[in-house]
Amino acid sequence: MSQAAQQTRERVPMNGVDTPTLFATINVVRDQPALAKFQFRATNRWVGGTHSQSRIEKFSGAGGEQSHGQAFHFDADHPKVLVGGDQGPTPVEFLLHALASCLTAGIANVAAARGVKLSEVRSTVEGDIDLRGILGLADDVRNGYEKIRVSFSIKGEAPAEKLLEIAEQSRSRSAVFDVITNNVPVEITVHA
Amino acid sequence: MSQAAQQTRERVPMNGVDTPTLFATINVVRDQPALAKFQFRATNRWVGGTHSQSRIEKFSGAGGEQSHGQAFHFDADHPKVLVGGDQGPTPVEFLLHALASCLTAGIANVAAARGVKLSEVRSTVEGDIDLRGILGLADDVRNGYEKIRVSFSIKGEAPAEKLLEIAEQSRSRSAVFDVITNNVPVEITVHA
Repeated sequence: MSQAAQQTRERVPMNGVDTPTLFATINVVRDQPALAKFQFRATNRWVGGTHSQSRIEKFSGAGGEQSHGQAFHFDADHPKVLVGGDQGPTPVEFLLHALASCLTAGIANVAAARGVKLSEVRSTVEGDIDLRGILGLADDVRNGYEKIRVSFSIKGEAPAEKLLEIAEQSRSRSAVFDVITNNVPVEITVHA
Repeated sequence: MSQAAQQTRERVPMNGVDTPTLFATINVVRDQPALAKFQFRATNRWVGGTHSQSRIEKFSGAGGEQSHGQAFHFDADHPKVLVGGDQGPTPVEFLLHALASCLTAGIANVAAARGVKLSEVRSTVEGDIDLRGILGLADDVRNGYEKIRVSFSIKGEAPAEKLLEIAEQSRSRSAVFDVITNNVPVEITVHA
């Protein structure tokens, strides 16, 4: 395929992705890097026991304050087997959702950019954790997950090899994959 | 306070935490470390564009298969300014919720264990991210957050110093804080 033909193909909306606008946005950011500086936020309040609720609505980026179309609220809790109230998933389960959804969004975007029509993307994420860490029972056991496994099933109008390449490109540009597999400095301040 | 008096105090339910059962659970796990092996899971399916939905319900641990009292469903999407459909928060915002809720659950548990009655725990989490990473516009910019800041406001029936110690103990035993500030290996397999 000629480069011109490929470029035309890449500008077609696909997989529910508005590919022309996505490419236009990338080009704008290329010219004005400051627009790429984003800050995401969540506020959380303790409800009782191990149950808390977060609110997600505002963020900044693209040169100004932004807002989701609505405020999203999420509960988290510990399960009953860990003496919690089970009013929501555990915090560590939200990490698995974040990872799966980040990789999946990337797969849809990359496939659209490469002109590949997808019909199905499904994944299962498993995280192994030894709770002796957080329970303070073993100093040589870490607090968090020891290992996370993601299993994808991807179907689309392309050879398997191309679908695997799309998944790999998504992984290589995934924000959540980076956060989980590399260190992010976290600063905690407490007002009491 | 004598050790006996302190022990009695520690066994009183507080902050909505069933402290006696929590301590009993920790003692059982101390004697049977295999019970501490947990596996958390999420399944995700692509909806369209950058929108996907995760389901969280089953997990294993405490020697067997476990289940939340209900299946929890969560949507994630990219915001409109990033050419998404805004059908949910972004995946990276769920990381902030996970962090806040993990630290908050720990604060409630630790405070109860130390006999400190809490009246309020609020937090704001901010994550700075330069999207030139995920957009493929700058090789020296990482994909994920560059920095995360958590600001807690804690009120309770204890001197400020004690409340700060409780927050610090929660941080030192937080699973999500560990995942974000240290590496977790992630294995991805793709069936296409």
